[in-house]
Amino acid sequence: MQANGNHNSLRRHRERLEALGIQLPTPPIPLGNYVETSLVGTLLFTSGILPFVDGKLLFTGRLGADLTVEQGQEATRYAALNALAAASHFLGDVDRLQKVVRVGIALATTEAFTQHAAVADGASDLFVQLFGKEQGHTRLVVGALSLPVRTPVVLDAVFEVVV
Amino acid sequence: MQANGNHNSLRRHRERLEALGIQLPTPPIPLGNYVETSLVGTLLFTSGILPFVDGKLLFTGRLGADLTVEQGQEATRYAALNALAAASHFLGDVDRLQKVVRVGIALATTEAFTQHAAVADGASDLFVQLFGKEQGHTRLVVGALSLPVRTPVVLDAVFEVVV
Amino acid sequence: MQANGNHNSLRRHRERLEALGIQLPTPPIPLGNYVETSLVGTLLFTSGILPFVDGKLLFTGRLGADLTVEQGQEATRYAALNALAAASHFLGDVDRLQKVVRVGIALATTEAFTQHAAVADGASDLFVQLFGKEQGHTRLVVGALSLPVRTPVVLDAVFEVVV
Repeated sequence: MQANGNHNSLRRHRERLEALGIQLPTPPIPLGNYVETSLVGTLLFTSGILPFVDGKLLFTGRLGADLTVEQGQEATRYAALNALAAASHFLGDVDRLQKVVRVGIALATTEAFTQHAAVADGASDLFVQLFGKEQGHTRLVVGALSLPVRTPVVLDAVFEVVV
Repeated sequence: MQANGNHNSLRRHRERLEALGIQLPTPPIPLGNYVETSLVGTLLFTSGILPFVDGKLLFTGRLGADLTVEQGQEATRYAALNALAAASHFLGDVDRLQKVVRVGIALATTEAFTQHAAVADGASDLFVQLFGKEQGHTRLVVGALSLPVRTPVVLDAVFEVVV
Repeated sequence: MQANGNHNSLRRHRERLEALGIQLPTPPIPLGNYVETSLVGTLLFTSGILPFVDGKLLFTGRLGADLTVEQGQEATRYAALNALAAASHFLGDVDRLQKVVRVGIALATTEAFTQHAAVADGASDLFVQLFGKEQGHTRLVVGALSLPVRTPVVLDAVFEVVV
Protein backbone atom coordinates (compact mmCIF):
# COMPACT_ATOMS: atom_id res chain seq x y z
CA MET A 1 0.00 0.00 0.00
CA GLN A 2 1.61 3.24 -1.10
CA ALA A 3 -0.70 6.04 -0.04
CA ASN A 4 -1.78 5.42 3.55
CA GLY A 5 -5.29 3.99 3.35
CA ASN A 6 -6.01 6.11 0.30
CA HIS A 7 -6.76 3.99 -2.75
CA ASN A 8 -8.89 6.06 -5.05
CA SER A 9 -9.13 3.90 -8.14
CA LEU A 10 -12.15 5.04 -10.12
CA ARG A 11 -15.32 2.94 -10.13
CA ARG A 12 -13.87 0.83 -7.33
CA HIS A 13 -17.04 0.21 -5.31
CA ARG A 14 -19.26 -0.11 -8.34
CA GLU A 15 -17.00 -2.82 -9.73
CA ARG A 16 -16.84 -4.67 -6.43
CA LEU A 17 -20.61 -4.52 -6.10
CA GLU A 18 -20.94 -6.00 -9.58
CA ALA A 19 -18.35 -8.67 -8.81
CA LEU A 20 -20.34 -9.57 -5.68
CA GLY A 21 -23.56 -9.68 -7.68
CA ILE A 22 -25.04 -6.89 -5.58
CA GLN A 23 -27.37 -4.25 -6.96
CA LEU A 24 -28.04 -1.36 -4.60
CA PRO A 25 -31.74 -1.15 -3.67
CA THR A 26 -33.88 1.97 -4.01
CA PRO A 27 -33.03 4.25 -1.08
CA PRO A 28 -35.25 3.98 2.01
CA ILE A 29 -37.99 6.53 2.74
CA PRO A 30 -37.90 8.41 6.07
CA LEU A 31 -40.53 7.46 8.68
CA GLY A 32 -40.89 11.09 9.83
CA ASN A 33 -39.82 14.70 9.29
CA TYR A 34 -36.14 14.07 8.61
CA VAL A 35 -33.89 13.12 5.70
CA GLU A 36 -31.75 10.02 5.15
CA THR A 37 -28.40 11.78 4.61
CA SER A 38 -26.69 15.01 5.60
CA LEU A 39 -23.33 16.21 4.32
CA VAL A 40 -21.01 18.48 6.29
CA GLY A 41 -17.49 18.98 4.95
CA THR A 42 -16.23 15.53 3.99
CA LEU A 43 -18.56 13.71 6.38
CA LEU A 44 -21.83 12.18 5.23
CA PHE A 45 -24.15 11.18 8.08
CA THR A 46 -27.05 8.80 7.57
CA SER A 47 -30.20 8.51 9.63
CA GLY A 48 -31.09 5.32 11.41
CA ILE A 49 -31.67 2.92 8.50
CA LEU A 50 -34.02 -0.10 8.67
CA PRO A 51 -33.81 -3.42 6.79
CA PHE A 52 -36.55 -2.58 4.31
CA VAL A 53 -36.73 -4.70 1.17
CA ASP A 54 -39.10 -3.39 -1.50
CA GLY A 55 -40.84 -1.24 1.10
CA LYS A 56 -41.38 -4.02 3.65
CA LEU A 57 -39.29 -4.97 6.67
CA LEU A 58 -37.25 -8.10 5.99
CA PHE A 59 -38.04 -9.25 9.56
CA THR A 60 -39.74 -7.94 12.68
CA GLY A 61 -39.16 -9.00 16.27
CA ARG A 62 -36.31 -9.64 18.68
CA LEU A 63 -32.96 -11.35 18.52
CA GLY A 64 -32.91 -14.16 21.05
CA ALA A 65 -36.65 -14.82 20.74
CA ASP A 66 -38.15 -14.31 17.27
CA LEU A 67 -34.99 -14.27 15.17
CA THR A 68 -31.82 -16.35 14.89
CA VAL A 69 -28.34 -14.87 14.75
CA GLU A 70 -28.25 -15.71 11.03
CA GLN A 71 -31.50 -13.81 10.41
CA GLY A 72 -30.09 -10.91 12.39
CA GLN A 73 -27.01 -10.92 10.18
CA GLU A 74 -29.21 -10.84 7.11
CA ALA A 75 -31.12 -7.91 8.58
CA THR A 76 -27.99 -5.88 9.41
CA ARG A 77 -26.63 -6.63 5.93
CA TYR A 78 -29.80 -5.26 4.33
CA ALA A 79 -29.70 -2.18 6.54
CA ALA A 80 -26.09 -1.64 5.39
CA LEU A 81 -27.15 -2.00 1.75
CA ASN A 82 -29.90 0.56 2.31
CA ALA A 83 -27.40 2.93 3.94
CA LEU A 84 -25.12 2.56 0.92
CA ALA A 85 -28.11 3.13 -1.36
CA ALA A 86 -29.06 6.31 0.51
CA ALA A 87 -25.48 7.62 0.40
CA SER A 88 -25.06 6.71 -3.25
CA HIS A 89 -28.36 8.37 -4.15
CA PHE A 90 -27.33 11.56 -2.35
CA LEU A 91 -23.85 11.67 -3.86
CA GLY A 92 -24.92 10.55 -7.33
CA ASP A 93 -22.17 7.92 -7.35
CA VAL A 94 -21.24 5.21 -4.86
CA ASP A 95 -17.59 5.75 -5.80
CA ARG A 96 -17.57 9.13 -4.09
CA LEU A 97 -17.61 7.21 -0.80
CA GLN A 98 -14.06 7.13 0.52
CA LYS A 99 -14.57 4.97 3.58
CA VAL A 100 -16.95 4.03 6.38
CA VAL A 101 -15.87 5.97 9.47
CA ARG A 102 -18.40 4.70 11.97
CA VAL A 103 -21.37 2.34 12.12
CA GLY A 104 -23.92 2.37 14.93
CA ILE A 105 -26.18 -0.64 15.30
CA ALA A 106 -29.16 -0.89 17.64
CA LEU A 107 -30.66 -4.36 17.97
CA ALA A 108 -34.01 -5.32 19.45
CA THR A 109 -33.06 -8.20 21.73
CA THR A 110 -34.14 -10.20 24.72
CA GLU A 111 -32.67 -9.29 28.10
CA ALA A 112 -30.32 -12.29 28.01
CA PHE A 113 -28.99 -11.82 24.47
CA THR A 114 -25.19 -11.64 24.17
CA GLN A 115 -24.31 -12.24 20.49
CA HIS A 116 -24.46 -8.61 19.35
CA ALA A 117 -21.05 -8.78 17.67
CA ALA A 118 -21.94 -11.76 15.49
CA VAL A 119 -25.18 -10.11 14.34
CA ALA A 120 -23.48 -6.78 13.60
CA ASP A 121 -20.89 -8.54 11.45
CA GLY A 122 -23.66 -8.97 8.86
CA ALA A 123 -23.20 -5.25 8.15
CA SER A 124 -19.47 -5.06 8.84
CA ASP A 125 -18.59 -7.95 6.52
CA LEU A 126 -20.36 -6.19 3.64
CA PHE A 127 -18.57 -2.91 4.33
CA VAL A 128 -15.21 -4.69 4.50
CA GLN A 129 -15.92 -6.53 1.23
CA LEU A 130 -16.54 -3.18 -0.45
CA PHE A 131 -14.04 -0.86 1.18
CA GLY A 132 -11.25 -3.31 1.97
CA LYS A 133 -9.83 -4.69 5.19
CA GLU A 134 -7.31 -1.83 5.44
CA GLN A 135 -10.19 0.66 5.52
CA GLY A 136 -11.89 -0.77 8.59
CA HIS A 137 -14.69 1.10 10.35
CA THR A 138 -15.46 1.73 14.00
CA ARG A 139 -18.64 0.24 15.40
CA LEU A 140 -21.00 0.58 18.33
CA VAL A 141 -23.64 -2.09 19.02
CA VAL A 142 -26.30 -1.93 21.74
CA GLY A 143 -29.43 -3.89 22.62
CA ALA A 144 -32.54 -1.69 22.71
CA LEU A 145 -35.80 -2.24 24.58
CA SER A 146 -37.83 -1.11 21.57
CA LEU A 147 -37.24 0.10 18.03
CA PRO A 148 -39.47 1.87 15.48
CA VAL A 149 -42.18 -0.25 13.80
CA ARG A 150 -40.81 -3.46 15.43
CA THR A 151 -37.67 -3.55 13.28
CA PRO A 152 -34.99 -5.85 14.74
CA VAL A 153 -32.21 -3.55 13.53
CA VAL A 154 -31.47 0.14 13.06
CA LEU A 155 -28.13 1.09 11.50
CA ASP A 156 -26.64 4.56 11.18
CA ALA A 157 -23.36 5.38 9.48
CA VAL A 158 -20.83 8.15 9.03
CA PHE A 159 -19.00 8.01 5.70
CA GLU A 160 -16.00 9.98 4.52
CA VAL A 161 -16.66 11.25 1.01
CA VAL A 162 -14.57 12.64 -1.82
CA VAL A 163 -15.66 16.25 -2.32
CA MET B 1 -32.63 28.04 -4.53
CA GLN B 2 -29.36 29.39 -5.92
CA ALA B 3 -26.61 28.28 -3.55
CA ASN B 4 -27.15 24.59 -2.75
CA GLY B 5 -28.79 24.49 0.67
CA ASN B 6 -26.87 27.59 1.74
CA HIS B 7 -29.20 30.43 2.71
CA ASN B 8 -27.31 32.66 5.07
CA SER B 9 -29.62 35.64 5.49
CA LEU B 10 -28.69 37.41 8.70
CA ARG B 11 -30.86 37.04 11.80
CA ARG B 12 -32.77 34.27 10.06
CA HIS B 13 -33.34 31.94 13.03
CA ARG B 14 -33.91 34.75 15.51
CA GLU B 15 -36.64 36.18 13.29
CA ARG B 16 -38.28 32.82 12.79
CA LEU B 17 -38.22 32.16 16.52
CA GLU B 18 -39.91 35.52 17.10
CA ALA B 19 -42.45 34.82 14.36
CA LEU B 20 -43.24 31.48 16.01
CA GLY B 21 -43.57 33.18 19.41
CA ILE B 22 -40.69 31.11 20.80
CA GLN B 23 -38.21 32.42 23.34
CA LEU B 24 -35.21 30.18 23.89
CA PRO B 25 -35.06 28.94 27.49
CA THR B 26 -32.03 29.26 29.76
CA PRO B 27 -29.57 26.54 28.75
CA PRO B 28 -29.72 23.27 30.68
CA ILE B 29 -27.22 22.43 33.44
CA PRO B 30 -25.13 19.24 33.14
CA LEU B 31 -26.00 16.36 35.49
CA GLY B 32 -22.33 15.39 35.89
CA ASN B 33 -18.74 16.22 35.00
CA TYR B 34 -19.28 17.21 31.38
CA VAL B 35 -20.34 20.24 29.34
CA GLU B 36 -23.39 20.80 27.16
CA THR B 37 -21.56 21.74 23.93
CA SER B 38 -18.22 21.09 22.25
CA LEU B 39 -16.99 22.74 19.05
CA VAL B 40 -14.55 21.11 16.66
CA GLY B 41 -14.01 22.75 13.30
CA THR B 42 -17.48 23.64 11.99
CA LEU B 43 -19.23 20.94 14.05
CA LEU B 44 -20.92 21.73 17.34
CA PHE B 45 -21.82 18.63 19.36
CA THR B 46 -24.32 18.75 22.22
CA SER B 47 -24.58 16.41 25.17
CA GLY B 48 -27.70 14.37 25.79
CA ILE B 49 -30.27 17.07 26.54
CA LEU B 50 -33.34 16.53 28.73
CA PRO B 51 -36.77 18.23 28.57
CA PHE B 52 -36.16 20.49 31.55
CA VAL B 53 -38.47 23.49 31.92
CA ASP B 54 -37.39 26.01 34.56
CA GLY B 55 -35.14 23.38 36.14
CA LYS B 56 -37.78 20.64 36.35
CA LEU B 57 -38.48 17.76 33.98
CA LEU B 58 -41.59 18.44 31.89
CA PHE B 59 -42.56 14.77 32.34
CA THR B 60 -41.11 11.59 33.80
CA GLY B 61 -41.93 8.00 32.87
CA ARG B 62 -42.34 5.81 29.81
CA LEU B 63 -43.96 6.18 26.42
CA GLY B 64 -46.59 3.50 26.05
CA ALA B 65 -47.39 3.44 29.77
CA ASP B 66 -47.14 6.79 31.58
CA LEU B 67 -47.13 9.17 28.62
CA THR B 68 -49.13 9.61 25.42
CA VAL B 69 -47.54 10.15 22.02
CA GLU B 70 -48.59 13.82 22.24
CA GLN B 71 -46.85 14.23 25.60
CA GLY B 72 -43.79 12.56 24.12
CA GLN B 73 -43.83 15.03 21.24
CA GLU B 74 -44.01 17.90 23.70
CA ALA B 75 -41.05 16.43 25.58
CA THR B 76 -38.88 15.99 22.46
CA ARG B 77 -39.80 19.53 21.40
CA TYR B 78 -38.62 20.92 24.74
CA ALA B 79 -35.41 18.91 24.55
CA ALA B 80 -34.83 20.40 21.08
CA LEU B 81 -35.44 23.92 22.43
CA ASN B 82 -32.94 23.25 25.20
CA ALA B 83 -30.39 21.99 22.67
CA LEU B 84 -30.88 25.18 20.64
CA ALA B 85 -30.52 27.21 23.84
CA ALA B 86 -27.27 25.45 24.74
CA ALA B 87 -25.87 25.94 21.23
CA SER B 88 -26.98 29.57 21.09
CA HIS B 89 -25.48 30.25 24.52
CA PHE B 90 -22.15 28.74 23.46
CA LEU B 91 -22.02 30.55 20.12
CA GLY B 92 -23.38 33.84 21.45
CA ASP B 93 -25.92 33.95 18.63
CA VAL B 94 -28.46 31.41 17.38
CA ASP B 95 -27.85 32.70 13.84
CA ARG B 96 -24.38 31.20 13.81
CA LEU B 97 -26.12 27.82 13.48
CA GLN B 98 -26.00 26.82 9.83
CA LYS B 99 -27.99 23.60 9.98
CA VAL B 100 -28.83 20.56 12.08
CA VAL B 101 -26.69 17.69 10.80
CA ARG B 102 -27.88 14.90 13.06
CA VAL B 103 -30.32 14.37 15.93
CA GLY B 104 -30.20 11.35 18.24
CA ILE B 105 -33.26 10.61 20.34
CA ALA B 106 -33.44 8.00 23.09
CA LEU B 107 -36.94 7.33 24.43
CA ALA B 108 -37.91 5.51 27.60
CA THR B 109 -40.62 3.15 26.35
CA THR B 110 -42.46 -0.03 27.09
CA GLU B 111 -41.32 -3.19 25.37
CA ALA B 112 -44.24 -3.08 22.93
CA PHE B 113 -43.96 0.60 21.94
CA THR B 114 -43.66 1.25 18.18
CA GLN B 115 -44.45 4.96 17.61
CA HIS B 116 -40.90 6.28 17.98
CA ALA B 117 -41.05 8.24 14.73
CA ALA B 118 -44.19 10.17 15.70
CA VAL B 119 -42.71 11.11 19.08
CA ALA B 120 -39.38 12.18 17.57
CA ASP B 121 -41.19 14.46 15.12
CA GLY B 122 -41.84 16.76 18.09
CA ALA B 123 -38.17 17.72 17.82
CA SER B 124 -37.82 17.38 14.06
CA ASP B 125 -40.81 19.58 13.29
CA LEU B 126 -39.29 22.38 15.36
CA PHE B 127 -35.92 22.06 13.62
CA VAL B 128 -37.58 22.09 10.19
CA GLN B 129 -39.63 25.17 11.13
CA LEU B 130 -36.42 26.98 12.03
CA PHE B 131 -33.93 25.71 9.46
CA GLY B 132 -36.24 25.05 6.53
CA LYS B 133 -37.40 21.90 4.79
CA GLU B 134 -34.47 22.02 2.34
CA GLN B 135 -32.04 21.82 5.30
CA GLY B 136 -33.35 18.54 6.69
CA HIS B 137 -31.46 16.65 9.38
CA THR B 138 -30.63 12.98 9.86
CA ARG B 139 -32.13 11.23 12.84
CA LEU B 140 -31.69 8.12 14.96
CA VAL B 141 -34.40 7.05 17.44
CA VAL B 142 -34.15 4.11 19.85
CA GLY B 143 -36.15 2.85 22.80
CA ALA B 144 -34.05 2.62 25.99
CA LEU B 145 -34.59 0.43 29.03
CA SER B 146 -33.70 3.30 31.38
CA LEU B 147 -32.70 6.95 31.13
CA PRO B 148 -31.14 9.37 33.65
CA VAL B 149 -33.46 10.69 36.40
CA ARG B 150 -36.50 9.00 34.79
CA THR B 151 -36.63 11.42 31.85
CA PRO B 152 -38.75 10.06 28.98
CA VAL B 153 -36.43 11.65 26.39
CA VAL B 154 -32.77 12.41 25.83
CA LEU B 155 -31.81 14.30 22.67
CA ASP B 156 -28.32 14.95 21.34
CA ALA B 157 -27.50 16.98 18.26
CA VAL B 158 -24.69 17.82 15.88
CA PHE B 159 -24.96 21.28 14.33
CA GLU B 160 -22.98 22.83 11.51
CA VAL B 161 -21.94 26.33 12.52
CA VAL B 162 -20.67 29.41 10.72
CA VAL B 163 -17.11 30.01 11.98
CA MET C 1 -6.28 31.63 29.18
CA GLN C 2 -4.97 33.35 26.06
CA ALA C 3 -5.67 31.04 23.14
CA ASN C 4 -9.29 29.89 23.39
CA GLY C 5 -9.17 26.36 24.78
CA ASN C 6 -5.93 25.68 22.97
CA HIS C 7 -3.11 24.75 25.35
CA ASN C 8 -0.69 22.60 23.43
CA SER C 9 2.19 22.15 25.84
CA LEU C 10 4.19 19.12 24.73
CA ARG C 11 3.95 15.86 26.66
CA ARG C 12 1.02 17.22 28.59
CA HIS C 13 -1.13 14.08 28.82
CA ARG C 14 1.82 11.73 29.27
CA GLU C 15 3.02 13.78 32.24
CA ARG C 16 -0.43 13.92 33.80
CA LEU C 17 -0.84 10.18 33.39
CA GLU C 18 2.48 9.67 35.15
CA ALA C 19 1.55 12.12 37.89
CA LEU C 20 -1.71 10.20 38.40
CA GLY C 21 0.19 6.90 38.50
CA ILE C 22 -1.68 5.65 35.44
CA GLN C 23 -0.15 3.41 32.80
CA LEU C 24 -2.26 2.99 29.68
CA PRO C 25 -3.29 -0.65 29.17
CA THR C 26 -2.73 -2.61 25.98
CA PRO C 27 -5.42 -1.54 23.50
CA PRO C 28 -8.59 -3.66 23.38
CA ILE C 29 -9.17 -6.23 20.62
CA PRO C 30 -12.32 -5.92 18.45
CA LEU C 31 -15.09 -8.50 19.01
CA GLY C 32 -15.92 -8.62 15.28
CA ASN C 33 -15.03 -7.36 11.80
CA TYR C 34 -14.28 -3.75 12.71
CA VAL C 35 -11.41 -1.66 14.05
CA GLU C 36 -11.07 0.27 17.30
CA THR C 37 -10.26 3.70 15.79
CA SER C 38 -10.92 5.63 12.58
CA LEU C 39 -9.43 9.01 11.70
CA VAL C 40 -11.13 11.51 9.42
CA GLY C 41 -9.65 15.00 9.23
CA THR C 42 -8.96 16.04 12.83
CA LEU C 43 -11.57 13.68 14.30
CA LEU C 44 -10.65 10.31 15.72
CA PHE C 45 -13.65 8.04 16.33
CA THR C 46 -13.45 4.99 18.57
CA SER C 47 -15.61 1.89 18.49
CA GLY C 48 -17.70 0.89 21.46
CA ILE C 49 -15.04 0.08 24.05
CA LEU C 50 -15.55 -2.42 26.91
CA PRO C 51 -13.97 -2.47 30.39
CA PHE C 52 -11.52 -5.24 29.61
CA VAL C 53 -8.57 -5.66 31.99
CA ASP C 54 -5.87 -8.04 30.77
CA GLY C 55 -8.32 -9.56 28.30
CA LYS C 56 -11.12 -10.15 30.81
CA LEU C 57 -14.16 -8.01 31.60
CA LEU C 58 -13.70 -6.19 34.91
CA PHE C 59 -17.38 -6.92 35.69
CA THR C 60 -20.42 -8.43 34.00
CA GLY C 61 -24.07 -7.80 34.78
CA ARG C 62 -26.46 -4.91 35.38
CA LEU C 63 -26.34 -1.66 37.30
CA GLY C 64 -29.10 -1.68 39.88
CA ALA C 65 -28.98 -5.46 40.32
CA ASP C 66 -25.52 -7.04 40.04
CA LEU C 67 -23.32 -3.96 40.37
CA THR C 68 -23.14 -0.94 42.66
CA VAL C 69 -22.75 2.60 41.40
CA GLU C 70 -19.11 2.52 42.57
CA GLN C 71 -18.43 -0.64 40.55
CA GLY C 72 -20.11 1.01 37.57
CA GLN C 73 -17.81 4.01 37.95
CA GLU C 74 -14.80 1.71 38.01
CA ALA C 75 -16.07 0.02 34.85
CA THR C 76 -16.63 3.28 32.95
CA ARG C 77 -13.18 4.47 34.08
CA TYR C 78 -11.56 1.33 32.66
CA ALA C 79 -13.48 1.69 29.42
CA ALA C 80 -12.18 5.27 29.20
CA LEU C 81 -8.61 4.08 29.81
CA ASN C 82 -9.02 1.50 27.05
CA ALA C 83 -10.36 4.18 24.70
CA LEU C 84 -7.31 6.33 25.47
CA ALA C 85 -5.08 3.31 24.91
CA ALA C 86 -6.69 2.59 21.53
CA ALA C 87 -6.36 6.23 20.47
CA SER C 88 -2.79 6.48 21.71
CA HIS C 89 -1.85 3.25 19.94
CA PHE C 90 -3.32 4.52 16.67
CA LEU C 91 -1.71 7.96 16.91
CA GLY C 92 1.60 6.70 18.25
CA ASP C 93 1.48 9.29 21.02
CA VAL C 94 -1.22 10.16 23.57
CA ASP C 95 -0.13 13.79 23.32
CA ARG C 96 -1.52 14.05 19.82
CA LEU C 97 -4.97 14.04 21.45
CA GLN C 98 -6.18 17.61 21.61
CA LYS C 99 -9.44 17.10 23.48
CA VAL C 100 -12.37 14.77 24.01
CA VAL C 101 -15.25 16.05 21.88
CA ARG C 102 -17.94 13.55 22.78
CA VAL C 103 -18.38 10.46 24.93
CA GLY C 104 -21.25 8.00 24.50
CA ILE C 105 -21.95 5.60 27.33
CA ALA C 106 -24.41 2.69 27.20
CA LEU C 107 -25.09 1.02 30.53
CA ALA C 108 -26.75 -2.34 31.15
CA THR C 109 -29.26 -1.47 33.88
CA THR C 110 -32.45 -2.54 35.54
CA GLU C 111 -35.68 -0.91 34.44
CA ALA C 112 -35.79 1.26 37.57
CA PHE C 113 -32.16 2.48 37.50
CA THR C 114 -31.74 6.28 37.55
CA GLN C 115 -28.10 6.99 38.51
CA HIS C 116 -26.65 7.00 35.00
CA ALA C 117 -24.89 10.32 35.51
CA ALA C 118 -23.00 9.19 38.60
CA VAL C 119 -21.82 6.02 36.88
CA ALA C 120 -20.74 7.89 33.74
CA ASP C 121 -18.66 10.29 35.83
CA GLY C 122 -16.21 7.42 36.31
CA ALA C 123 -15.16 8.05 32.71
CA SER C 124 -15.71 11.82 32.68
CA ASP C 125 -13.64 12.44 35.81
CA LEU C 126 -10.68 10.67 34.21
CA PHE C 127 -11.00 12.67 31.00
CA VAL C 128 -11.23 15.94 32.94
CA GLN C 129 -8.16 15.01 35.02
CA LEU C 130 -6.20 14.52 31.80
CA PHE C 131 -7.56 17.21 29.50
CA GLY C 132 -8.46 19.88 32.04
CA LYS C 133 -11.74 21.33 33.21
CA GLU C 134 -11.68 24.03 30.50
CA GLN C 135 -11.62 21.28 27.83
CA GLY C 136 -14.84 19.62 28.89
CA HIS C 137 -16.51 16.99 26.72
CA THR C 138 -20.12 16.39 25.73
CA ARG C 139 -21.74 13.18 26.91
CA LEU C 140 -24.70 10.94 26.16
CA VAL C 141 -25.71 8.17 28.60
CA VAL C 142 -28.49 5.63 28.05
CA GLY C 143 -29.63 2.44 29.74
CA ALA C 144 -29.61 -0.54 27.35
CA LEU C 145 -31.63 -3.76 27.54
CA SER C 146 -28.61 -5.83 26.55
CA LEU C 147 -24.95 -5.29 25.71
CA PRO C 148 -22.32 -7.52 24.02
CA VAL C 149 -20.92 -10.39 26.13
CA ARG C 150 -22.78 -9.16 29.25
CA THR C 151 -20.55 -6.10 29.72
CA PRO C 152 -22.15 -3.51 32.04
CA VAL C 153 -20.65 -0.64 30.01
CA VAL C 154 -19.82 0.28 26.44
CA LEU C 155 -18.09 3.62 25.83
CA ASP C 156 -17.41 5.29 22.49
CA ALA C 157 -15.54 8.54 22.02
CA VAL C 158 -14.76 11.20 19.47
CA PHE C 159 -11.41 12.91 20.00
CA GLU C 160 -9.97 15.97 18.33
CA VAL C 161 -6.38 15.27 17.32
CA VAL C 162 -3.37 17.34 16.31
CA VAL C 163 -2.60 16.44 12.68
